[in-house]
Amino acid sequence: MIKNQLYKLITREFKPEDTIIDINSVKIGGKEIIVFAGPCAVENEEQTITIARNVKKSGAKILRGGAFKPRTSPYSFHGLGEEGLKLLAKAREITKMPVATEVMDTESINLICKYADILQVGSRNAQNFSLLKKLGKCDKPILLKRGMSSMLEEFLSAAEYILNEGNPNVILCERGIRTFETSTRNTLDLSIVPLIKQRTHLPIIVDPSHGTGLRNLVNPMSKAAIAAGADGLLIEVHHKPEIAKSDGQQSLNLVEFNNLMQELKTVSKAVGRDL
Amino acid sequence: MIKNQLYKLITREFKPEDTIIDINSVKIGGKEIIVFAGPCAVENEEQTITIARNVKKSGAKILRGGAFKPRTSPYSFHGLGEEGLKLLAKAREITKMPVATEVMDTESINLICKYADILQVGSRNAQNFSLLKKLGKCDKPILLKRGMSSMLEEFLSAAEYILNEGNPNVILCERGIRTFETSTRNTLDLSIVPLIKQRTHLPIIVDPSHGTGLRNLVNPMSKAAIAAGADGLLIEVHHKPEIAKSDGQQSLNLVEFNNLMQELKTVSKAVGRDL
Amino acid sequence: MIKNQLYKLITREFKPEDTIIDINSVKIGGKEIIVFAGPCAVENEEQTITIARNVKKSGAKILRGGAFKPRTSPYSFHGLGEEGLKLLAKAREITKMPVATEVMDTESINLICKYADILQVGSRNAQNFSLLKKLGKCDKPILLKRGMSSMLEEFLSAAEYILNEGNPNVILCERGIRTFETSTRNTLDLSIVPLIKQRTHLPIIVDPSHGTGLRNLVNPMSKAAIAAGADGLLIEVHHKPEIAKSDGQQSLNLVEFNNLMQELKTVSKAVGRDL
Amino acid sequence: MIKNQLYKLITREFKPEDTIIDINSVKIGGKEIIVFAGPCAVENEEQTITIARNVKKSGAKILRGGAFKPRTSPYSFHGLGEEGLKLLAKAREITKMPVATEVMDTESINLICKYADILQVGSRNAQNFSLLKKLGKCDKPILLKRGMSSMLEEFLSAAEYILNEGNPNVILCERGIRTFETSTRNTLDLSIVPLIKQRTHLPIIVDPSHGTGLRNLVNPMSKAAIAAGADGLLIEVHHKPEIAKSDGQQSLNLVEFNNLMQELKTVSKAVGRDL
Repeated sequence: MIKNQLYKLITREFKPEDTIIDINSVKIGGKEIIVFAGPCAVENEEQTITIARNVKKSGAKILRGGAFKPRTSPYSFHGLGEEGLKLLAKAREITKMPVATEVMDTESINLICKYADILQVGSRNAQNFSLLKKLGKCDKPILLKRGMSSMLEEFLSAAEYILNEGNPNVILCERGIRTFETSTRNTLDLSIVPLIKQRTHLPIIVDPSHGTGLRNLVNPMSKAAIAAGADGLLIEVHHKPEIAKSDGQQSLNLVEFNNLMQELKTVSKAVGRDL
Repeated sequence: MIKNQLYKLITREFKPEDTIIDINSVKIGGKEIIVFAGPCAVENEEQTITIARNVKKSGAKILRGGAFKPRTSPYSFHGLGEEGLKLLAKAREITKMPVATEVMDTESINLICKYADILQVGSRNAQNFSLLKKLGKCDKPILLKRGMSSMLEEFLSAAEYILNEGNPNVILCERGIRTFETSTRNTLDLSIVPLIKQRTHLPIIVDPSHGTGLRNLVNPMSKAAIAAGADGLLIEVHHKPEIAKSDGQQSLNLVEFNNLMQELKTVSKAVGRDL
Repeated sequence: MIKNQLYKLITREFKPEDTIIDINSVKIGGKEIIVFAGPCAVENEEQTITIARNVKKSGAKILRGGAFKPRTSPYSFHGLGEEGLKLLAKAREITKMPVATEVMDTESINLICKYADILQVGSRNAQNFSLLKKLGKCDKPILLKRGMSSMLEEFLSAAEYILNEGNPNVILCERGIRTFETSTRNTLDLSIVPLIKQRTHLPIIVDPSHGTGLRNLVNPMSKAAIAAGADGLLIEVHHKPEIAKSDGQQSLNLVEFNNLMQELKTVSKAVGRDL
Repeated sequence: MIKNQLYKLITREFKPEDTIIDINSVKIGGKEIIVFAGPCAVENEEQTITIARNVKKSGAKILRGGAFKPRTSPYSFHGLGEEGLKLLAKAREITKMPVATEVMDTESINLICKYADILQVGSRNAQNFSLLKKLGKCDKPILLKRGMSSMLEEFLSAAEYILNEGNPNVILCERGIRTFETSTRNTLDLSIVPLIKQRTHLPIIVDPSHGTGLRNLVNPMSKAAIAAGADGLLIEVHHKPEIAKSDGQQSLNLVEFNNLMQELKTVSKAVGRDL
């Protein structure tokens, strides 16, 4: 079968039961909906700690934040680098939340592993096979975002690269694909969520912040993602979105995030999940 | 403002309150989620009546069914024509459900108006402006599907054509757009639902059957559509999908549809809607 | 074979030799490259006659011009209607060039047939099957534009609708498809030109004006179209593009068009064609 | 201006005259059309030398061949690695043609620099910014392919990353974008060629082999690329395409390549170029 030539280890045929990834007792892929929240980019200590404390209070389970930022232009803000990682680690110490952050290249894997609990592969590296293979030898869970133009088969094959090198802990993330529609930043392809649940045993979460690029769509599309069967959400939150160094227009503020979390509880329950 | 050059009557600025369309006491655009269900194509009396009776029993409020079918090839089954309309009318008489059916050209508007309660414009006619203008002079509500490659602005402008001719009763329908992803028939763009609710006062429903093309995605994507804020659903149901004359692979059978309706109740409630 | 279910009459298997359409001795689909040129919209007599005279002098063989204009918004300029047709007929009388103009609905077919030599179906009506069928009973050649989201199979099936009703004279036209790239108005898909020449016997021309939406791309993409094997070009020309009522930004002025025609001669010759 | 925030060094405003890249007297970006030809993947000595000798005889100026192959699946053939590089170096020694080969990660840059004259960045790494930055410190020219979903601005920004680190020698390569059309492997976007020539001073070549994925489209689309203003072509050639380890269906055989080169001469001349 052609599909078996592309991938095997990620399929339900190979492993029928759901993969549940346990990070300090936060279980991704189980009955509970897990929300990753935090700023697009780590900017400074006050920002990081303020946001971390608040998203935790609202119910987030994982802190997300970028220290190394892939940006279209070489002249944009590219993150604080190791200093950013240290701030994330500090926030983790204070809040006890595991930290997820992006890894852009093989050279920085070891450095990031020192500070983070989950390594994120961004959509621009979704088919950076050298990176995927090295992450397959890593002992931390990988959060693998779908490429902007990745077909389902390519997305799943990218995950297979990681499993094939020995790392079984891959969390898939739908974050929107590139289409002709420009009223949203990307087109969030939620149909892929149930398809992935049917075909693979891996957890799949959804990023409505990048998926829509519009703050006031994050709430309804978060609900839709959970209703479609997602195991979690990745949400950009900033205590002052209007001065955020990147992606402010799609970040929720602390109040909006707290409201969202309350509303998500009932939707989660309606589809048999906890939050 | 550029947007005002494209459209005006459909905007919230022009009319802040929701448009609620009342068809024999079925209210589309209000608190209640309205489900349109029925076969892709009307095939014969037994099929039509059986499906109509059963979807009604499960909670559908509007019977959908095609008598005139736009098909890619001139050699495919193109529907029963007026005979199909008569069968739909008969099903309406028996079930008391209003009937929605597709109108493909200006010549058949009068004929279809004799039998149907809602006239549907298919995605291939989404920018057939002559048809839209004639429907703007019609006294029946119009169910306007988004074109496969319609940007939001184009979809809304198409509705404006109808309102501008005097018919205020337009129900918008997201049914998937054409993208590079081939694992689903189209890419269901649910983000457009909350965008449309924000910008316009018109009801918006979602067609997960055409939007995904896969029977086992209809259930999760129906839930997602409601969670995203849709006012209703358009669902293909067939009592024997395996022998349906068109779109069998995306039609629910009667049991699947009944189960779906039960599950949708809790999701609807979770987002403050009734079903 | 699946393809035979979609279409048959347009294939090389059915008719191996090229279809050459003869309109008052202008032969489309033969060795000669045929250029259709003229304004996007007919605006007034002076404009129409000036442009017609000049494009003829530069080597155009067919006059194109819109009397009925499909526009995204109901509030844009929609053409002069029959008055526009009369101006086109007058230009034909003066220049002896056959006239091609768009038909938007079945009701206006007879009217347009009175004035025009070629009836154009626009991309928004590329799957308006009722229109296609009526045009199949018409005795004038049809210029069928590809839909913005038409796959090759759908484009060819649309032509089959016309042939299947008895009209063998269809000229296909590639005019760009809708993709994520926004630096051009559409993405001109020239690869479809040699594919169509291989699979069908119908002539295929290219519209670089709509295909790119940018005046300074019309020249290089016209050359590319001919190099790829197109049988002709459809080019928007205006004597004063800066005041054109529609599509001025993609219209060549008279000097630019004349220069283009000179440069196209050598490219045509290089691929064994005349101009 | 927004564009200046994305890039600067690659623009015509910054450097009005064309960048001409000289590799052992092969000048890319000048009046002469430069053809890169060779196998998709280096398979063995006989294959590599046979193809190299023949494409040189037919007029190719640069030998292309993959030693490290990015493949969707971890289970496909991924190239011979350093052994492949050695075979390419041997072919260079025999034919005196400079060699272009793909670099997939920062770790292998030094190794590949030992053997190759031009380092190619594949479309899947088109926004692998860590790789681009390291290549910006390299003293070899970079052949930068457009990402499958790269908008023009992103493609040019990727080049800016390389120039900004000090390497001025970037050759851009259009290789098709991902769209809904599946009758070709990608949609070759030739309109970007003249746009790039207008906006930047960098050479731009076209890859019709990947751009179409179909052997019998390579000839017409090569001509179209040159007519559109491309500075060169990247063409897959195999002495036995039917047994090629990858991409055989889009590779020309030696006779087809030789015929193509003859036919390209006249097209090149017709647009004022040499070959």
